[in-house]
Amino acid sequence: MSEGKTGLQLRSLIRKTGELEISLVTMQTPEPAPDEVVVRVEASPINPSDLGLLLGAADMATAKASGTKESPIITAHVPEAGLKAMAGRLDESMAVGNEGAGVVIKTGASDAAKALMDKTVAMIGGAMYTQYRCLKANECLPLPAGTTPAEGASCFVNPLTALGMTETMRREGHKALVHTAAASNLGQMLNKICLKDGIPLVNIVRSKEQADILHKIGAKHVVDSTAPSFLDDLTHLLVQTGATLAFDAIGGGKLAGQILTCMETAANKTAKVYSRYGSNVHKQVYIYGGLDPRPLELNRTFGMAWGVGGWLLFPFLMKLGPVEGRLLRERVIDELRTTFASHYTKVVSLQEALDPANIALYAKRATGEKFLINPHKGR
Amino acid sequence: MSEGKTGLQLRSLIRKTGELEISLVTMQTPEPAPDEVVVRVEASPINPSDLGLLLGAADMATAKASGTKESPIITAHVPEAGLKAMAGRLDESMAVGNEGAGVVIKTGASDAAKALMDKTVAMIGGAMYTQYRCLKANECLPLPAGTTPAEGASCFVNPLTALGMTETMRREGHKALVHTAAASNLGQMLNKICLKDGIPLVNIVRSKEQADILHKIGAKHVVDSTAPSFLDDLTHLLVQTGATLAFDAIGGGKLAGQILTCMETAANKTAKVYSRYGSNVHKQVYIYGGLDPRPLELNRTFGMAWGVGGWLLFPFLMKLGPVEGRLLRERVIDELRTTFASHYTKVVSLQEALDPANIALYAKRATGEKFLINPHKGR
Repeated sequence: MSEGKTGLQLRSLIRKTGELEISLVTMQTPEPAPDEVVVRVEASPINPSDLGLLLGAADMATAKASGTKESPIITAHVPEAGLKAMAGRLDESMAVGNEGAGVVIKTGASDAAKALMDKTVAMIGGAMYTQYRCLKANECLPLPAGTTPAEGASCFVNPLTALGMTETMRREGHKALVHTAAASNLGQMLNKICLKDGIPLVNIVRSKEQADILHKIGAKHVVDSTAPSFLDDLTHLLVQTGATLAFDAIGGGKLAGQILTCMETAANKTAKVYSRYGSNVHKQVYIYGGLDPRPLELNRTFGMAWGVGGWLLFPFLMKLGPVEGRLLRERVIDELRTTFASHYTKVVSLQEALDPANIALYAKRATGEKFLINPHKGR
Repeated sequence: MSEGKTGLQLRSLIRKTGELEISLVTMQTPEPAPDEVVVRVEASPINPSDLGLLLGAADMATAKASGTKESPIITAHVPEAGLKAMAGRLDESMAVGNEGAGVVIKTGASDAAKALMDKTVAMIGGAMYTQYRCLKANECLPLPAGTTPAEGASCFVNPLTALGMTETMRREGHKALVHTAAASNLGQMLNKICLKDGIPLVNIVRSKEQADILHKIGAKHVVDSTAPSFLDDLTHLLVQTGATLAFDAIGGGKLAGQILTCMETAANKTAKVYSRYGSNVHKQVYIYGGLDPRPLELNRTFGMAWGVGGWLLFPFLMKLGPVEGRLLRERVIDELRTTFASHYTKVVSLQEALDPANIALYAKRATGEKFLINPHKGR
């Protein structure tokens, strides 16, 4: 069988000189080891979490296209300040793409590997913007018969992140959630989980259009941070739901601090004795994204019982352990066409992913805009 | 016995109209219940943690003195913005003073209470800026024979806070500490504990004078945040010590974020593989004070494995439980004249504590400036 001997792979390189270069390279597909399989990748989403590696700190307003139609090259300037934060990856060509799905076309000699032959599988592990991916059999999640790679392409990052939020809530003793940038693909999944599991969820959005998206899928509590009554509206919903944990995709600016302040106001509405240190209720914001690159500003008008911190899926899964992790993955597969269905605005080939017009769209990280790469599109 | 039937007590009141009033009131001393004792308070420190309740959000530049020499009154204006945060205490006269020491002059009928008669005891529980304090016998810590009330006045807040820092370090899996405003009374105690227990401690100070204070007591790692080389100096010490936990008394401005950034730089110096999310090393800053009232600004150039949060002694002691708490208190008593010795710049009466010249000094919260109130001074 000659299929899959070589294939194209998308690479992102930032040079010491301050230049980002995104290009396609032809790669020899490795021979699978006994416990490995080779997958023909047919679908891999461009998640916000992929953009950091793909575009680095480059200023995409300076992007230039060169190369050929079959082998396009994108270059862009990386500002001095951004270059510093990229120190660890300079002059190293990086493969991109956290997750994807495809069909197993070759296997190693082990039974576990052989059992996957011809199966459609979902994968996690990086380097998915590639035509053929060799990986361990146990890094593949076989999809139910009839599931397409496009349906299974986003099995991991968004579904497990959303489930990670409700799991974190339970483990840290909270009883309701706040979520920002809440009309995102991830936010919609979180709403479906919370509706199904009976968890009160306060959705913070930045426009009426986003509020409408959530109302349409049945969200109960939606508040618009651009409304003049935002802080009062939010406090009201926090009193109603008792939410003391927020997951924030914005990162910069005042929003995280405003959430903590409103949580504190809500907690004090039921307090009986004055405490100069504020309420004893622990209020937590986990930041899992950076849609706003400005510094995070906390005015600390929320007592002393508070925390703000980074939250990432993989360290959370490590903490959770393999048994609990498997239960979450099983739930994703069971509800792949309902709770965890992803919607894409555009399906592109590897070459089209390097089209400046497409980059301009997905680099915006706009709510509702979501690209899927099919490395075999048109082949 | 007629001693202690009535006594003076310091009170702080913030009116809805935006006026702070500090005054002395004459109080009837309660008859002790069976499990209670009455203590003649002879020493109570003015800790930074007392100033929040004593002065509230008042602008002390507007302070005016009135009343008589025996019964002085201080009034000051509370700005509109500050008044909002004081909502919980408006028009309520508050007793002040977290901790103190004195001599038991009357007891209830229980054996535990009677055993304390004539003993010099340390106390915690508020309302210590008073001549006679009635409290439960088990809220008193008997001091070793020969200890003066002045020596025992600061047995709780600073010693247990300093021990709470090293305990938190152990419990959360860190191996070294960073401390800011590190030449404070508390900071000096922390240095003595860390030297004794072999814990590497990075001290951040804001002047050469403060660095000198610490060097004199044997501190090994001191860095001056006003030096142009501050960030490099701090990173160097973080690499050397491996400190990934900081306790910060400053609260506002950029310092907490700078500490996290330097911790991340230090962690990446030993990292082998590039991770777009930064190092996996969890970096934590606990904020336990607010010397800088400006907002806290975090530029998030420190990856995703980080946390910032409030830290308070009493919730920590609750978490610790009674057995561990007792061990810490026993250590304080054992090392009261060495590790946990407090130094005061001035001993004042209740009336003198209301002298505008003294208020101007202790309201500055300046490192090295520490007042002790003796409610029986001159009597």
